[in-house]
Amino acid sequence: MSDSNGTLRRRATLAAFRGAGLRPENGSSAGPPASSGTADRTAHDGPKKRDLSLERPTKKSEKKKRNNEVSDRLGCHKTRESLLSSASGYNNYRGVLNWCVVLLVLSNARLFLENLLRYGILVDPIQVVSLFLNDPYSWPAGCLVIVSNVFILVALYTERQLSKGSFSELAGFLVHCINMAIMLTFPAIVVLLVPSMTPVGGLFALGVHTILFLKLYSYKDVNLWCRELSTAKAKKLARSLSCPSPQHFNGGSSKVCYPGNLTVRDMYYFVFAPTLCYELNFPRSSKIRMGFLLRRLFEMLFFTQMLVALTQQWMIPIIQSSMKPLEDMDLSRMAERLLRLAVPNHLMWLMFFYWFFHSSLNFTAELLCFGDRQFYRDWWNSETVTYFWQNWNIPVHKWCLRHFYKPLLRRGFSKIVSQSAVFFLSAFFHEYLVSVPLRMFRLWAFTGMMAQLPLAWFVGQFLRGNYGNAAVWMSIIIGQPFAILMYVHDYYVMHYRKEAN
Amino acid sequence: MSDSNGTLRRRATLAAFRGAGLRPENGSSAGPPASSGTADRTAHDGPKKRDLSLERPTKKSEKKKRNNEVSDRLGCHKTRESLLSSASGYNNYRGVLNWCVVLLVLSNARLFLENLLRYGILVDPIQVVSLFLNDPYSWPAGCLVIVSNVFILVALYTERQLSKGSFSELAGFLVHCINMAIMLTFPAIVVLLVPSMTPVGGLFALGVHTILFLKLYSYKDVNLWCRELSTAKAKKLARSLSCPSPQHFNGGSSKVCYPGNLTVRDMYYFVFAPTLCYELNFPRSSKIRMGFLLRRLFEMLFFTQMLVALTQQWMIPIIQSSMKPLEDMDLSRMAERLLRLAVPNHLMWLMFFYWFFHSSLNFTAELLCFGDRQFYRDWWNSETVTYFWQNWNIPVHKWCLRHFYKPLLRRGFSKIVSQSAVFFLSAFFHEYLVSVPLRMFRLWAFTGMMAQLPLAWFVGQFLRGNYGNAAVWMSIIIGQPFAILMYVHDYYVMHYRKEAN
Repeated sequence: MSDSNGTLRRRATLAAFRGAGLRPENGSSAGPPASSGTADRTAHDGPKKRDLSLERPTKKSEKKKRNNEVSDRLGCHKTRESLLSSASGYNNYRGVLNWCVVLLVLSNARLFLENLLRYGILVDPIQVVSLFLNDPYSWPAGCLVIVSNVFILVALYTERQLSKGSFSELAGFLVHCINMAIMLTFPAIVVLLVPSMTPVGGLFALGVHTILFLKLYSYKDVNLWCRELSTAKAKKLARSLSCPSPQHFNGGSSKVCYPGNLTVRDMYYFVFAPTLCYELNFPRSSKIRMGFLLRRLFEMLFFTQMLVALTQQWMIPIIQSSMKPLEDMDLSRMAERLLRLAVPNHLMWLMFFYWFFHSSLNFTAELLCFGDRQFYRDWWNSETVTYFWQNWNIPVHKWCLRHFYKPLLRRGFSKIVSQSAVFFLSAFFHEYLVSVPLRMFRLWAFTGMMAQLPLAWFVGQFLRGNYGNAAVWMSIIIGQPFAILMYVHDYYVMHYRKEAN
Repeated sequence: MSDSNGTLRRRATLAAFRGAGLRPENGSSAGPPASSGTADRTAHDGPKKRDLSLERPTKKSEKKKRNNEVSDRLGCHKTRESLLSSASGYNNYRGVLNWCVVLLVLSNARLFLENLLRYGILVDPIQVVSLFLNDPYSWPAGCLVIVSNVFILVALYTERQLSKGSFSELAGFLVHCINMAIMLTFPAIVVLLVPSMTPVGGLFALGVHTILFLKLYSYKDVNLWCRELSTAKAKKLARSLSCPSPQHFNGGSSKVCYPGNLTVRDMYYFVFAPTLCYELNFPRSSKIRMGFLLRRLFEMLFFTQMLVALTQQWMIPIIQSSMKPLEDMDLSRMAERLLRLAVPNHLMWLMFFYWFFHSSLNFTAELLCFGDRQFYRDWWNSETVTYFWQNWNIPVHKWCLRHFYKPLLRRGFSKIVSQSAVFFLSAFFHEYLVSVPLRMFRLWAFTGMMAQLPLAWFVGQFLRGNYGNAAVWMSIIIGQPFAILMYVHDYYVMHYRKEAN
């Protein structure tokens, strides 16, 4: 934020403006305008003594100088427009950004203080453990994650058989399909049926399985493409593509070719790598930068604490106080609670974004020497809804593009249909990850995702530039807490009202 | 806010970043990087069809094209940094300003709704009348304003006698001094002693007299300077300065020379003109622009209504609810109320600024064909406290510079002393305009103005650029409601607690 040239720049702008803005209409006032222009900026400068024009020695006689001074005093007005008049052509409102920041900080300091005065300190880091565990001797989510290794090894085994020709392509495809179908259904059934599974634990287990599902789907696809290339007639061409020749690389490490990649080590590197798209030879960074690693680790720990503290201190009281208006369907009070929830929810989402996409994924990548750190692009500047969805979550976007959208296009579907299919898939997984852990099928998350399609059409059609950007921000800030409030309301009605009756 | 080139610009920035950010460390992945770079931006573009590279016909054979496509699919990672890593060199956070604006709008919408739900509608435009009038048959403030004409005419009479030589310079000076001393003390005594005078009426009457005081002081000074010039030995030189020769003006209207300006018409033009600095020949605009005049008139009416409505609906409930914490001197609750008051108070100050310095002064200037519309400069960008005080109120700043600061410098005082004297004078008038109408001498306004000196030193010494700008905003947003709360508390304790006991 700080720039030491700011003052100079501002003065230059002002000087330029002054030059442009002075249009004498009916005649200028008495006295030379140039000298009065500099003279009226000397006052108050005080300790800094920026403008020393008054002290400058002149060669004029003392009397003449005195007369000039008197005439300067006599005429002090010039014909000019106010800065805020459109006629002035002035448009330097740089200070407005600082004004926004100061006002946001002050408003939130006020909310913080009000919250503390009303509720006292509610932060309790130990309480977090209870979100994952109901019964300290039963770890269903952990067990599910351990079990997931089975799916990984089945996929690897299938690919090995396929590469040796022991499985036909069809058999391999069927085994993969069954493996992946079980990978999505088995944990869902466990989460729904095991009573000691908490919603947060269930979300964690299902999230791990969803990520694995996407990774193994990519693994299957890429190995299939490699086989297609190597069984192609143009043997020479294929070889140079599926495994680049050594002169392409300046480094020493040799590159892996198709069947050579089917190792447990390679498989687990991919499983832990911060990407969903499999590749035989990932770009690698040369060494682990310890400073970078420790900064990311510190951020991870700090933001975890912040997220927990903000949830306990800020979100939960608002959600609890919204139950009454939601039950009564009191619309104006519901809107007030929604707006009240929107700010902390949005700040937490931003923290979560930074925590996950910057700190955690970069930490993992640095640890694994994984070279491609593009986990997000500049979604904060997005002027269309599609730009936002294309840029905020690059691993998922890349997967959708490579393994879903482009294959659909290649099969002859139109762009519109393929795009809608991507949103449909995304909506399915959103619903899967929310409904199953909560044991509630309400379709709010699904509807929320699918509502992005008409929203994208509307914003793309009617809003441009900064208005589009503001509309995207608005949809992020308002849309999320709306969906959350819906789920919370239904969860509350299901669990607590039942108890009360 | 809207710019249709936004998308193009963003794309250019992104492209530039991509070019700069791709530094392969250990070797690139399989497949030509250029084509994968464009290909991974085609998805989701949907209805807009911005990027048609996939449809472009190629001259390669179908088989080669297919092989290339497959190899594109195989390698989809590149060595690159995350945008938020300092190593990426990325710094386009244009969307952040929109984020701030959206968040401010939403927070204030929330406050608005909460306020309506809690208090209902409190706006009552008729109630405003009671601020000016206690007794509908007694108009003390109006009478005072009518009486002020006496001071104007005394000043004009004195100057006429001085120009004719009927008064000696000393006698004229004494008459002016007595006239101006009465101008400040007589209304103050009336406001203090007449019981039907309301605080708002008193403020209005004293404000009018203060403005007149500054104007007549300038009138006296300028006429004195003109006499000094015309009685100077260099008759020719003086003439060309105190009354410019005709060839300087392209327009037709003749310019007034020294004794010719001492007319009732010229005096009253100056009294109503939106400036505090007298000049013999003000720059004039050529005609009255009706559209401009009507826009300013509409703004004046609109912002008057807004200011009244916001005060009744937003300020008064907060001030009333702050009385209890203020009485108990409960510090954390006082801070919370102060921050709660800061936002509406600041918004109202901004509205007042626009209403007075842009709408009202421009309206008056347009009506009087007054050419110099520089009533404020770009104080919103100020990075030092002195810059703010030099630029937010140009009429007063110009007067202080011409009739107080520069004369002090000419008499040999140092810059620091003269600057402090200006702040002292300003502090005196602030206190005069607040204490007398409220009939309470507490020195909060005086202290507030004088506190600007150490604040200016601190900000100038330690903060630069945007930090300085943020500090200035902070002092404006927090300082004002603090002083207001102090006065309101004392006023409340004096009037309402007395009644309660």
